[in-house]
Amino acid sequence: MSGSITGNLLLAGRFERGTEGAVHGIAAATGAAIEPAFGGASPAQLETACAAAHDAFETYRETGLAQRATFLEAIATNIEGLGETLIERCMLETGLPRPRLEGERARTAGQLRLFAAVLREGSFLDLRIDPALPDRKPLPRVDLRLRNIPLGPVAVFGASNFPLAFSVAGGDTASALAAGCPVVAKAHPSHPGTSELVGQAVAKAVADAALPGGVFSLIFTDGTGAAQALVADARIKAVGFTGSRAGGTALTRVAQGRPEPIPVYAEMSSINPVILLHGALAARGAAIGTAFAASLTLGAGQFCTNPGLILAVEGEGLDGFIAAASEAIAASAAATMLTPGIQTAYDGAVAKLAGHAGVQTLARGKQGGSNTGRAALFETTAAAFLAQHELQDEVFGASGLVVRCPDLASLRQVIEALEGQLTAALHITEADFEAARSLLPLLEGKVGRILVNGFGTGVEVSHAMVHGGPFPATSDGSSTSVGTLAIRRFLRPVSYQDLPQALLPETLRDGNPLGLPRMLDGKPGRE
Amino acid sequence: MSGSITGNLLLAGRFERGTEGAVHGIAAATGAAIEPAFGGASPAQLETACAAAHDAFETYRETGLAQRATFLEAIATNIEGLGETLIERCMLETGLPRPRLEGERARTAGQLRLFAAVLREGSFLDLRIDPALPDRKPLPRVDLRLRNIPLGPVAVFGASNFPLAFSVAGGDTASALAAGCPVVAKAHPSHPGTSELVGQAVAKAVADAALPGGVFSLIFTDGTGAAQALVADARIKAVGFTGSRAGGTALTRVAQGRPEPIPVYAEMSSINPVILLHGALAARGAAIGTAFAASLTLGAGQFCTNPGLILAVEGEGLDGFIAAASEAIAASAAATMLTPGIQTAYDGAVAKLAGHAGVQTLARGKQGGSNTGRAALFETTAAAFLAQHELQDEVFGASGLVVRCPDLASLRQVIEALEGQLTAALHITEADFEAARSLLPLLEGKVGRILVNGFGTGVEVSHAMVHGGPFPATSDGSSTSVGTLAIRRFLRPVSYQDLPQALLPETLRDGNPLGLPRMLDGKPGRE
Repeated sequence: MSGSITGNLLLAGRFERGTEGAVHGIAAATGAAIEPAFGGASPAQLETACAAAHDAFETYRETGLAQRATFLEAIATNIEGLGETLIERCMLETGLPRPRLEGERARTAGQLRLFAAVLREGSFLDLRIDPALPDRKPLPRVDLRLRNIPLGPVAVFGASNFPLAFSVAGGDTASALAAGCPVVAKAHPSHPGTSELVGQAVAKAVADAALPGGVFSLIFTDGTGAAQALVADARIKAVGFTGSRAGGTALTRVAQGRPEPIPVYAEMSSINPVILLHGALAARGAAIGTAFAASLTLGAGQFCTNPGLILAVEGEGLDGFIAAASEAIAASAAATMLTPGIQTAYDGAVAKLAGHAGVQTLARGKQGGSNTGRAALFETTAAAFLAQHELQDEVFGASGLVVRCPDLASLRQVIEALEGQLTAALHITEADFEAARSLLPLLEGKVGRILVNGFGTGVEVSHAMVHGGPFPATSDGSSTSVGTLAIRRFLRPVSYQDLPQALLPETLRDGNPLGLPRMLDGKPGRE
Repeated sequence: MSGSITGNLLLAGRFERGTEGAVHGIAAATGAAIEPAFGGASPAQLETACAAAHDAFETYRETGLAQRATFLEAIATNIEGLGETLIERCMLETGLPRPRLEGERARTAGQLRLFAAVLREGSFLDLRIDPALPDRKPLPRVDLRLRNIPLGPVAVFGASNFPLAFSVAGGDTASALAAGCPVVAKAHPSHPGTSELVGQAVAKAVADAALPGGVFSLIFTDGTGAAQALVADARIKAVGFTGSRAGGTALTRVAQGRPEPIPVYAEMSSINPVILLHGALAARGAAIGTAFAASLTLGAGQFCTNPGLILAVEGEGLDGFIAAASEAIAASAAATMLTPGIQTAYDGAVAKLAGHAGVQTLARGKQGGSNTGRAALFETTAAAFLAQHELQDEVFGASGLVVRCPDLASLRQVIEALEGQLTAALHITEADFEAARSLLPLLEGKVGRILVNGFGTGVEVSHAMVHGGPFPATSDGSSTSVGTLAIRRFLRPVSYQDLPQALLPETLRDGNPLGLPRMLDGKPGRE
C-alpha cells in the first residue's frame, strides 16, 4: 500500500500497466484531466484476473469464518490508513465535499466490520439438520444437512455516486468477500485514483492474510467491451452493479445469454415517491417543504434514494409545502456534479421536463460555475402524470416533480402506475393513519423500503435494511445491496445426505463444534 | 368437490368449459383417448384467471399464519378424500403403479402439512428489528424492521412425471400458497383428469375457508400459446416449472422479455452423476451394480434425479459392478412410460446413444408391449465423454452411461466438464475418504445435493433438502423446489423505517405479540 497513484491495474496481487487504451481521472470542478493516466485492461489481462479469481476460490472459500472476518476488518483498517491521501484525491475526482466523503469512508469501513460480525455470528450459513429416522415407516429417513456455500468469483462494478461505499471495496465487494467469493472489481472511470488507492488497501490485506492474490483484482477500462467480457467470462458466477438502467439491463442481457446464465444484482433506477397526506400537510406543510428541499439537494441530488417525486393530496397545507419547498430550492446554491457527463445529462433532463406539456416549473436553484447542477422543482397533475410514462424517468440530480392529486383515489391510481422503487416515504399525522394503512399493501408491492415522516436519502447499513425493490429499482426484486442480507446474493444452499462425519463440513458436524445457530428438524437453536 | 371429471376449467372458484381447442387424457398403457375432452383456456378465460388472482392477492396476503396453515391442511385432507377415484384415474393416465401413486399422494399431502408447520413456526418471515438509537453519534439511527412479503400471483406448470407431488397441488403450489401468493396452475396435458380432481380439492378448501376464488385457478391448454401468455401477463409475479430444458428456457425468455421481468424457477435437466471410487468398487462393486440398476429402472427411470451417469475409476471391482448392473438391467421388465411422446423420445435418444462412436451397449432390458420403455446401459471412456458434449444430454427414462476413468485425475476432469446437476452420489469406503474429500469442493460447485452410498431418486421433503442446482439443473441455482426452503422463491424482503406501532405489521410490533422468531440487532431470538 504505497499510497501513491501509479495508474496500474491490480491483477491477482501484482500491479501492472494496462495495455489497452487509457482512462484519465477528471477534476470534477474544472473538467481538467489528472495525471497519471490509467491503462485499460487488455483481454489477456482480464483473462489473468478471472483465471486467478477462479484458482483463488478453492482456497478462499475454505477459510474459516474468523479468518475471513479478520481479513475484512483489515481491509477496513487499511482504508482508514489511507488518511488524507484518499479523501483529497476523492474530493478532486468527484467534487463531493469533505464531510460527505469522511462520512462515506466511515460507512465503508463500518460495513466491512459489520460483515465481519455477520461471519462470526453465522446465521447467514442457514445451517439445517434433519437427522436420520431409521425406523420411520413406510420408509426410513436419511440424514440431511444443509449449508450455504459461496457462488464463486464475483464481478463488481463501481458506482459513480458512491466512490467509496459502492465502489472498489464497497457493499458489493464486502458482501461478496464475506460470502467467500473472490472479486474482480471494475473501477468506475469517474474516480480511478480513488479506486487505485482503495485497491491497494485491499491488496495489502490479501497479502497480509497470506491469501492467494486472485482473491481480489481491480481493472480499469475505457470502454464497455471489457465490462461485457468480464460478465461473459465463464469463471465469473455473479455480478454486482450500481448504475444506470441502460447499463444494468445491458449487463443483465450478457449474463442471461451465457451458456451458463448467472445472476446480475443491478441497482438501477428509482424516483422514490414521497407521499403527502392531508393531516401532515395541514399540520406542517411548510416544514415538510423545507425538509424535502434539503433532502433533494443533498449531495447535488446524486443519491439512488433521492426524493424525485412528490405525490400530494390537494387540500390545506399543500400550497404552504410548495411555497416553502420552492423558496428553499430557489435559495439553494448550485453544486458541483460528479462528472461533466452527469452534469450535461442532468441539464438535458431538466430542460426536457421544463418544456413538457402539462409540467410547470416551480423553482430553480441558483446559477453556478462550470459543471454545477442547479436544483429544480416542477409541478404537474395526476392526470398528466398518468398519461405520460416518461414523467417517471429518473433524473439523476436535484430535480423534483410534484404531482397534485385531487383526492386519495387518484393518489392511489398514481401509485399503481409507478414502476418499482427503492423507497417510498409517507408524511402523516395520526389523522392519516387510516389512509396510510390503506396504501401500505400497495406500497409494499412497489418498493423495498417504506418510511414515515422522513426521506430515503440516509441508508442505514444494518440487519433490517432493504436497499432494493421491484424492477427497475433492481434487476432482482428479492435482493438488497445494502445491509447484512446483501450477502445472500452470493450464496446458494447445498444439501448433504448421509455423509460420514469425517467428510461433513465442520459447521454441520454432530455436537455443533463451532457453536453456530442451526435449525434442527425445523426448530431454530444451537444444537 | 364432485369427484366426477367434467373437463372444465376452474376459474376463480367457478368451473366452466374452456372454449379454445381441447385436450384429451390418454391411457398411458394403450394410447387410447379418455373422455371427456378438456376445453382449452381462451385468452379471455386466461384473463379472468389472472385478474381474479390479482384481486384475490390483496385479501389472501393478509390472512394470518394460522389461517393459511389450516387452509393448506384442508387441501391435504381434501386430496386424501378423493380416495380411489384419484388413484385410479392417475394410474390410467400415467401408467404409474398403485404403490408409487399412493406414496406420491402421501408425499403431496405431507408437503402441504409441512408448509403449514413452516407457517406456524415463522422463521420464513426473516423478521428483523434494528431499534432506533437516538443518541448515536455522529448521526442517530432510525428504527428499522424487516419482514418477507409474498411476491403476488404465481403461475405453476404441472410436471409430467409427478402427477400429484409436482403438479396442480404439488410442491410449487404448496410453497406459493404458503408464501401468501395466489396460484394460476396450468395442468400438464398428460394427466388432465387427475389435475381436475386435485383442482376440485383445492377449490373446496378455498371455498370452505371463505377465501376469494381467485386464490386458485386451473387451466388446460392444447398448445404453448396459453402457457406463454400466462407468463407474459403483467399480474403474474413469478413462475414455478418442472419439465424439459427447452420448455423451461422458453418460458424464462418470455419472463425476461416482459416490461417488468419476473423470476422463473424452472427445474429442468439433470443426469445425476454417480461416482464410484476404488475402495467401494473393490469392497462391493457387484452389490452397487445391482442397487444402481434398481434405482435406474425405478418408475421407468422417469425421475429428475434418475442416476443417468456413472463415473467409475478403473480397477478392482469395476468389472463386477458392470456385470451385476448389466445382469439386472437385462432382467428388468419393460415399463409403461408416462406418454407415447415420452416413450418415442426415449427410444430415439437410446438409439442415438447406441449408434454413437465410442459408446458400447452393455445391456438392454426386456422387450415389452406398446408404450413401454426398455432399460438401457451403455459404456464409454473418459476421453470420449470429454470430447463429445452431447453425451451429457439428459435421456428421460431408464438409460445409464458408464464412463470409465483411468484414474482419479481423469475422473476429476470429467466432473469439471459437467453442467450443473441436481444430485451427485459418491460410493465410498473409509479407504476413499481422502479422494472423496478432494472431490467435494468440485461437486459442491456443480450440484444441489451430495449423497454418500445411495442414489438420488428418493427426495425427502424436509428442512435440509435442496432439490436444485446450477444451470441447467434449474434456472436459478440458488433455489430449491423441494423442501421448506422452496417458500423463499415466492418472497421478498421489505424494510419499514420509523413506522408507528399502529401501522406496523403485527409480526413486527414491539413485544413480539405473535411470539415469532425475530433477529434483534443481528441476534437470533424471540424478543
